[in-house]
Amino acid sequence: MKLTEFQTKYVPQIDNFLKSHLVSEVDNPVFSKIMSYSVMAGGKRLRPLLFLATLETLGHGIGESELRIACGIELIHTYSLIHDDLPAMDNDDYRRGELTSHKKWGEAEAILAGDALLPLGIQWIAEGSNSAALAIIMSQAIGPNGMVGGQYLDIDSTNNDSVKNNAKVINQMEWLKTGCLIEASVKMASVYAGANDDEIAKLDKFSKEFGRSYQIYDDLIDVVETAKEAGKATHKDADEGKNNTLTLLGLEDSRKKLAEMIKAGKEAIAIFNEPLLGEFFNLYRKVL
Amino acid sequence: MKLTEFQTKYVPQIDNFLKSHLVSEVDNPVFSKIMSYSVMAGGKRLRPLLFLATLETLGHGIGESELRIACGIELIHTYSLIHDDLPAMDNDDYRRGELTSHKKWGEAEAILAGDALLPLGIQWIAEGSNSAALAIIMSQAIGPNGMVGGQYLDIDSTNNDSVKNNAKVINQMEWLKTGCLIEASVKMASVYAGANDDEIAKLDKFSKEFGRSYQIYDDLIDVVETAKEAGKATHKDADEGKNNTLTLLGLEDSRKKLAEMIKAGKEAIAIFNEPLLGEFFNLYRKVL
Repeated sequence: MKLTEFQTKYVPQIDNFLKSHLVSEVDNPVFSKIMSYSVMAGGKRLRPLLFLATLETLGHGIGESELRIACGIELIHTYSLIHDDLPAMDNDDYRRGELTSHKKWGEAEAILAGDALLPLGIQWIAEGSNSAALAIIMSQAIGPNGMVGGQYLDIDSTNNDSVKNNAKVINQMEWLKTGCLIEASVKMASVYAGANDDEIAKLDKFSKEFGRSYQIYDDLIDVVETAKEAGKATHKDADEGKNNTLTLLGLEDSRKKLAEMIKAGKEAIAIFNEPLLGEFFNLYRKVL
Repeated sequence: MKLTEFQTKYVPQIDNFLKSHLVSEVDNPVFSKIMSYSVMAGGKRLRPLLFLATLETLGHGIGESELRIACGIELIHTYSLIHDDLPAMDNDDYRRGELTSHKKWGEAEAILAGDALLPLGIQWIAEGSNSAALAIIMSQAIGPNGMVGGQYLDIDSTNNDSVKNNAKVINQMEWLKTGCLIEASVKMASVYAGANDDEIAKLDKFSKEFGRSYQIYDDLIDVVETAKEAGKATHKDADEGKNNTLTLLGLEDSRKKLAEMIKAGKEAIAIFNEPLLGEFFNLYRKVL
């Protein structure tokens, strides 16, 4: 299946599931609205799509339970965006072209919306899969050795000259911040679908290349796109003393690195007949 | 077993597990230190003890796996304290007699320490139990219809005159904020130990009475103890326009209500030979 076709089929299903279940499963209607505000602010649904596309690649069906797991991933991704935008963190006023949660509802409300989306996301993953293994994969991916660990390295390294040219620290930070959750989305699908060891190894390799390259893409978007196109403040990283692969390698070498990762990621999944996962790299065309 | 004996046996084991595994399982040593700071700040370990005491009541053994689950609960409790203390929330400088996380390490660090302890807690619960059911019980208890929902009601109702005398809202807020996590600690043990339906119903009743009365106890401590004894700012709730059972019923009727709950809670678990759980109500003696 083509990725565009897959998106046309599943993005509306993901959006509908998120919208309706955030109403039906959150008792307090005002709090539900605050949580929904950020979840429904129009993301690409990349991580749930990756989960579902991996199932498709492995020939596993997609129904209500699988959508619940996929949407659980999106809740967790949204929590991370809300907390990243907080005044004490990146202090962003806009996200996806809309006011960030704390600007719209207040800081306490934004902290709590994030604090509610995280466990609700894990709940949906555990309910949809009835699997402790999936809950563990996700918890690890977003914990101190995963996404939040990356955020910690980020605040610790911002304006820290000893890190500015340290490729190892920058690689690790970017991997943890972005790569871990992407890797987990694919890994949860392989485990859930009962893939064999060889398939799991190939999909792991793919998700590592895709997850790592996604952050480089995101950094490149920061300089390539105007603020209007990206729906958030761009050209901001350099101003704020943020260190990333782009500031380390420069524009051309970052593009070169991205192209290498795309090649390696596509090769890893050449064993599958389904071309869907490889097409996720098409997202990067606009910065290459 | 007497509660004091049980505490003497298990509190050191809980403390050791927490201390050593927060070092061995968190890659970044500085971030590990920030997380440990709040976890090791000397709580009573009430929730892990309740989990373990319920296992004891049901005749289930306690080893490494059970300690991992119990300590996962404590990580989650600690996350909730760190976020409650944040400037945007209760804005507390001291907790358990020590500087709060954001005063000691900075606000971004405190947000992230909480954001890391939550998934690590769920991870430990899922790893120790290998049960999706336990991950679901915990996620529900701390999500939008549980603890965080209670926090939302709290910030929404503070200085809100329409709520000041609304017993229903106050009851619900106190239950969600404190009761849900206590109830979940007992429930996880009943499900984990494979209790029968009658035992589960009795333990549920006990945990509901204990959980609800714990918040009343906590409110009473606020006026009964001096700040030095409690290790945090006391007499603070009334000053800040907080609404709780105490402000609703007054001192004597709150004590009366607490006594009724103790009686009902003890009756619920009279079917068990083990007196351990009933002794948890002894904690309330100092405010009766």
